[in-house]
Amino acid sequence: MKSRLLRSEPDRVFLLRLERGDAFVESLARFAGEQGISAARIEGIGAFTDARLGFYDLERKDYDRFSVDEDAEVLSLLGNVTRKDGEPWVHAHVTLGRRDGAAIGGHLFEGHVAATLEVFVSAVPEELVREVDDHVGLALIRP
Amino acid sequence: MKSRLLRSEPDRVFLLRLERGDAFVESLARFAGEQGISAARIEGIGAFTDARLGFYDLERKDYDRFSVDEDAEVLSLLGNVTRKDGEPWVHAHVTLGRRDGAAIGGHLFEGHVAATLEVFVSAVPEELVREVDDHVGLALIRP
Amino acid sequence: MKSRLLRSEPDRVFLLRLERGDAFVESLARFAGEQGISAARIEGIGAFTDARLGFYDLERKDYDRFSVDEDAEVLSLLGNVTRKDGEPWVHAHVTLGRRDGAAIGGHLFEGHVAATLEVFVSAVPEELVREVDDHVGLALIRP
Repeated sequence: MKSRLLRSEPDRVFLLRLERGDAFVESLARFAGEQGISAARIEGIGAFTDARLGFYDLERKDYDRFSVDEDAEVLSLLGNVTRKDGEPWVHAHVTLGRRDGAAIGGHLFEGHVAATLEVFVSAVPEELVREVDDHVGLALIRP
Repeated sequence: MKSRLLRSEPDRVFLLRLERGDAFVESLARFAGEQGISAARIEGIGAFTDARLGFYDLERKDYDRFSVDEDAEVLSLLGNVTRKDGEPWVHAHVTLGRRDGAAIGGHLFEGHVAATLEVFVSAVPEELVREVDDHVGLALIRP
Repeated sequence: MKSRLLRSEPDRVFLLRLERGDAFVESLARFAGEQGISAARIEGIGAFTDARLGFYDLERKDYDRFSVDEDAEVLSLLGNVTRKDGEPWVHAHVTLGRRDGAAIGGHLFEGHVAATLEVFVSAVPEELVREVDDHVGLALIRP
């Protein structure tokens, strides 16, 4: 993964260019740690060779998990970076386009990059912290 | 719904955290009114328990309406806040992911939040006004 | 297509309002050239009357191409403007919603606007340049 600082003031905006085989969630979490990013918006497009997705079942308080084990266009990759237990935490949802154009998607556990993935990371000089909410069973952003 | 001002200069960026049962469009319109927001970009992810969507039929000049009456991941929620007849107006499109990953979407009339919905609102210090365009039958942004 | 400068400092943010029949990729590339934009994020919603999409086949190093020749909601339009061979280059992916809500999408070669298309263009005062990468067969952003 390569990064480029596009703007430094008033807040930092980065372009990340991920390359074939890069693991997106892992790469972004590491990058956020290195850069001291504790709150950011993310948006990107590109393609994955495989992706592990989830659908949150509120009754079970756990994710149904499924995989897309084929090349797919990343039609939209949206989400945020926050902190959980002091570490960078990536929350991203993705819409993927199959070869025939059919779109599928979900919560993104991880995805490996096909040809490229181009992601803008817009940091804000704040800290957003997640804490587990027992009612829904997920780590929610503390208001 | 809880809000957090992430940045105040040069323009305001808010994070909204909506909670179980919150109505997104209604909540955002009220928030925009309270904050005096007359132009903003919005982008978010999360999940809805139900959503009322639409497909605009240009010939009839009206929406075909349909509902998604089950929990669904909000894969992308994009749009804007403008003013119409002096009041805040939310224009949002949504892509939803069903339990099996299948994606559906449309113009968002309203959606109620499942576990959480995380929305960034990037205001700009301008006023964007909508006016009905008789040719297409919709309130378009006045250039 | 009409444009409105929403913010000029620290970087320019534009709202583009495209109208019935406008070709999005062509219109945005021309606009970027006129405005001297060499790096920008784009995000939009609206509707297309027809769209030419692609799925990149890494083995063939070429796109499978397909068309959506009917009105469709633009659920998400995300991407960027860069420079390639000195000229503005639009890289956008789109998720479309059909009349029944079914979502499809891919790399956007071109789309013609139905009732309206509302696009935010967030420029950054940098130049992002694309160069063909022989390994994947695509013009990637130079880090």
